[in-house]
Amino acid sequence: MKIRPATDADREAIWNILHEVVAAGDTYALDPNTSREDALAYWFAPGTHTYVAEQPAIGVVGTYILRPNQSGGGSHVANAGFMVSASARGQGLGRAMAEHCLSEARRLGFRAMQFNYVISTNTAAIRLWQDLGFEIVGTLASAFRHPDKGYVHVYVMYRSLLKK
Amino acid sequence: MKIRPATDADREAIWNILHEVVAAGDTYALDPNTSREDALAYWFAPGTHTYVAEQPAIGVVGTYILRPNQSGGGSHVANAGFMVSASARGQGLGRAMAEHCLSEARRLGFRAMQFNYVISTNTAAIRLWQDLGFEIVGTLASAFRHPDKGYVHVYVMYRSLLKK
Repeated sequence: MKIRPATDADREAIWNILHEVVAAGDTYALDPNTSREDALAYWFAPGTHTYVAEQPAIGVVGTYILRPNQSGGGSHVANAGFMVSASARGQGLGRAMAEHCLSEARRLGFRAMQFNYVISTNTAAIRLWQDLGFEIVGTLASAFRHPDKGYVHVYVMYRSLLKK
Repeated sequence: MKIRPATDADREAIWNILHEVVAAGDTYALDPNTSREDALAYWFAPGTHTYVAEQPAIGVVGTYILRPNQSGGGSHVANAGFMVSASARGQGLGRAMAEHCLSEARRLGFRAMQFNYVISTNTAAIRLWQDLGFEIVGTLASAFRHPDKGYVHVYVMYRSLLKK
């Protein structure tokens, strides 16, 4: 499996993954009916670093973005978002992309990384982030309306990228 | 003092306030060099409700925005941002706009309100939000580079808008 910066040639494969994940509506707070144009504009926004994970003979099966979480005095804190094709889950792809992302964030000079919106029912992601050194630093009560589970809590997760 | 929805005729007055607050760089994580065009596009973005506070014989001295903090399953939580002209501070304008904002948020059907980025050195704002029922629900360590004080913590603040 290879993780590399995305190019325009990856847009179709990325849209397929984005569409699948966003339409499910249970892990991201994005409109499930987001258009291809809007979704790709978000994923390839100015100032956003976009990557893909590619499997030999299969193609692009995952994608992530890395960007400053805020501008101005907050631009030293990174934010990231990850999506994996349903067909490729349970194979460590999320972990591989997350480790790649932490390495890229350090290379780009970020001092910390923040996830603004980790839905509490997304236990696989929470376990992974905790395993990679992130802590739950905030809880937003009933902030997400889950398609099956109703109103559920959302976590803010954070970790320093500075050497201890 | 009158608080009302902003119109295009308020753009010049709003830009004067935005420019002053953002250039100071100590309360918002926005690029201090943000252009007039970008700043007004942000303050009048689609889906954003924009208001001004007007004083008789003086004109617009404050402005705030109210919008969904997230899309999709997170769109029932509001976010808001407030700016007051330096010349009009200490007169209860922030409180009056915040109370107006909470009322508008309820009218629009939001179930909670979240401030994503309250800089810990902005003690007047924190006291006001706490007085209005907000709690610090998260702390982001050293997430803001203050122009005078170096890296300081940032708070996430939150309150329900549902009747108890």
